[in-house]
Amino acid sequence: MGCVPGPIQSIHRAAEVLKLLAHGGAHQLSVGEIARALDLAKPTVHGILRTLQEVGFVEQEVEGGKYRLGAALFQIGTSYLDGNELRAKALNWSDSLAMRAREAVRIGVMHGRHVLVVHHVFRPDNSRQALETGALLPWHATALGKVLVAFGEWPDGELRAFTRHTLDAAALAAAVDEVRDRDWAYDLHELVEGEASVAAPIRDRRGVVVGAVGISGPVERLCESPDRPPRLELVSYVREAARSVSRELGGLSW
Amino acid sequence: MGCVPGPIQSIHRAAEVLKLLAHGGAHQLSVGEIARALDLAKPTVHGILRTLQEVGFVEQEVEGGKYRLGAALFQIGTSYLDGNELRAKALNWSDSLAMRAREAVRIGVMHGRHVLVVHHVFRPDNSRQALETGALLPWHATALGKVLVAFGEWPDGELRAFTRHTLDAAALAAAVDEVRDRDWAYDLHELVEGEASVAAPIRDRRGVVVGAVGISGPVERLCESPDRPPRLELVSYVREAARSVSRELGGLSW
Repeated sequence: MGCVPGPIQSIHRAAEVLKLLAHGGAHQLSVGEIARALDLAKPTVHGILRTLQEVGFVEQEVEGGKYRLGAALFQIGTSYLDGNELRAKALNWSDSLAMRAREAVRIGVMHGRHVLVVHHVFRPDNSRQALETGALLPWHATALGKVLVAFGEWPDGELRAFTRHTLDAAALAAAVDEVRDRDWAYDLHELVEGEASVAAPIRDRRGVVVGAVGISGPVERLCESPDRPPRLELVSYVREAARSVSRELGGLSW
Repeated sequence: MGCVPGPIQSIHRAAEVLKLLAHGGAHQLSVGEIARALDLAKPTVHGILRTLQEVGFVEQEVEGGKYRLGAALFQIGTSYLDGNELRAKALNWSDSLAMRAREAVRIGVMHGRHVLVVHHVFRPDNSRQALETGALLPWHATALGKVLVAFGEWPDGELRAFTRHTLDAAALAAAVDEVRDRDWAYDLHELVEGEASVAAPIRDRRGVVVGAVGISGPVERLCESPDRPPRLELVSYVREAARSVSRELGGLSW
C-alpha cells in the first residue's frame, strides 16, 4: 500500500466533501453519491466522512444513513462573523443607514464569483423579511457586486440574465468603469424586475476595498421613475455610510 | 521520515485549528500561537493552515499576517441551516408562535454542553434585537436546554451560576425529572435576572426529541408575578407549536 495520502490532500478532499454537501442541492448524500461526484474510491470517502463525523462537521440522521452538514460546522461558520472586522465596524453604520434610507441594508464581500452577504439589516418596517446573511448574490446584477469588481478582479464565468435588464458583458464593463470613476454603483431591475440597489465601497487602512455597503428595494421607492437611476439623496446616504465605516477601519484620514 | 500523517489525523488537526480560531476569543492567531495551543510543531501547523487557506476556510489580512476564519467556511456553515429539516419545518410554526405569544422564539438543538440556536424569530415589535441564530446557550439555565437534556443525555461540565436563581445540580436534576413528566420546561431568572423562558420538545418520526422550541422574554410579560412560573396560556402556545412541528416531522400520529 505504501504511504497514506498526505495532510494536504486529505484536508483538500474533506473540504471538497463539505462543499459538495453545502452546494449539492440535495443537502443529504450517501457515501456512493459523494464518491461518484468527486471521483474518489468509496473507502476513501468513507474514511473522510467518518473523521468529519467525529469532529461534528457532518451528521447522519440514522446510523448507516446519508450524510449532511453538522452543527459544529454551522457554529464555527457563524464565528467567522465575530472575527470579521469589517462587519463589526459596520454594524452601527448599517443600522443608521437603514433608518435614514428606510430600506434594507446589506454589507457584502467578494467570494469567488459571488457577493457574500456578511450583514443584513431588515427594512425598518413591520413587513416579513428573510435574513440574507450568508447568502450569495450574483456580482454582475447587484450594485454591491459592481463596486467589488470595479475595485477588485473581474471574475470568470457566465453572466446569467436574470431579467431583460441584466447587463451583458460589454455594458457591464462600461458600467464597472463608470463605478471606478464615480465611486458608487447601482442596479435597476437587473436582478429582480421592479427592484433597485445602490452601493459604495468600504476601504481599509491600506486603501484597499474590502467590502461594499448598499441598500436595495422597490424602484418606486428608490428612484424617481422606474427607468431612472436611484435618487441622489439615497445615494448620498449610502456613500456617507461607506465613508463612515472606512474611517473606522482607518481607510480615510479625514 | 517515513509516512506522512494519515487522513484521519490531518483532518482532525485541521478541525482543531478551525475550532481554536472560532472559540479562541482572539479571532486572529499566528502560526506560533496555534502551534502552542494545540501542542503541534510549527511546520505541521503551517502546512495545515496553508491548505485551509487554499480551500478558503482560513484567511490572512495580509501576507505573513495572523490567520482567521475564512468566508468559505461561513458560507458552508450557513448551508447547514438549509439542510436542517427540523428548522425548515419549524419556520412557519415559530413565526406564528411569535405572533401569538408576542415574544421572541428560538429553536434549539443540543450541541455538546450547549444549546445551539438554529432559528430565532424576533419579538414582533419594533424594538432593536440581536439575531441569535448560531448562538450557544448554557443548557442548564434555559428552558430549551432543560427540555433537550430531559429527553437526551446529561452533559458533563460545570454548571455556572449566572444569577442567584440559576439552579444547582440537585435542583436541576429534580427540575429535569419534572420536565420529563410534564413535557415542557421553564426558566425563571436563571440565565438573566428579570427574564424567563418556556420550551417544549420537538419529536421526529422515530419519536426521538430532535430539538426544542421556546419563547423568552421579561418575567413581567411571561409570568403573572416575578416569582411565579410562566402563564399557562403562553405555555399552551409553546406546546402547540412544538406539537405542530413534530407532526410535520412525522413524530405524532394524531
